[in-house]
Amino acid sequence: MDKYDNDNIFARILRGKIPATILCEDDMTLAFMDIMPRADGHCLVIPKAPSRNILDVKPQDIAAVMQTVQKISRAVMKGFDADGLTIQQFNEQAGGQMVFHLHVHVIPRFDGVRLGPHTGIMADTDLLEKNAEIIRAAL
Amino acid sequence: MDKYDNDNIFARILRGKIPATILCEDDMTLAFMDIMPRADGHCLVIPKAPSRNILDVKPQDIAAVMQTVQKISRAVMKGFDADGLTIQQFNEQAGGQMVFHLHVHVIPRFDGVRLGPHTGIMADTDLLEKNAEIIRAAL
Repeated sequence: MDKYDNDNIFARILRGKIPATILCEDDMTLAFMDIMPRADGHCLVIPKAPSRNILDVKPQDIAAVMQTVQKISRAVMKGFDADGLTIQQFNEQAGGQMVFHLHVHVIPRFDGVRLGPHTGIMADTDLLEKNAEIIRAAL
Repeated sequence: MDKYDNDNIFARILRGKIPATILCEDDMTLAFMDIMPRADGHCLVIPKAPSRNILDVKPQDIAAVMQTVQKISRAVMKGFDADGLTIQQFNEQAGGQMVFHLHVHVIPRFDGVRLGPHTGIMADTDLLEKNAEIIRAAL
């Protein structure tokens, strides 16, 4: 496995070098909107400590991440009146990982609606902010 | 959200009422082979304590589950010489959940090989045991 790269996009978001649509933050984690969402309300939770993925993350960091995942999951269910949630965590390129800082996807789901594909198309910033506000209000 | 049903299939596996191809077990978690694998080596990690999914799981239980997920992930990577892993956790039917006891899927991935569909077809028990032995040997 390659080493952690300090210049990955999420490390730069953590350093405040590039913007993100933030949902919530605590000492150990950050939650923000996925800029290439597979559904409205698709968001990400990351640890603040550097870790590439599940293979190298420290116990306390993944525990903290999952606590924030639960908090965000409850807010997404409530805010979007969702019927369910798909949670995904990809490891290495073969596993679907594209940014090499551990992240957990939280995707709201609705009865009868298939999960959208990963299109690689960036969402409109205003739409991300509108969806973020729905989640923040439900936190 | 519906209440936890004590007769779900994973609760019955935990009570030893129905068999499973076990990988490892500790005080708080159990890991075993998925009987409808999307890839050779597809396995599941569950908490021993009752919880329906991410929405109701206790912090200590999801923390313990993720520790076992990491242990299993490392073993699956080593045992299958995998290039990556896809980790999934489904919540409610709309989110992809079929058994209503929290579970985390760990699926080995290989460069250039797409993730297989969920077929609903039960795997051959001997093949599950063979794949389990590969993972156990790498633990």
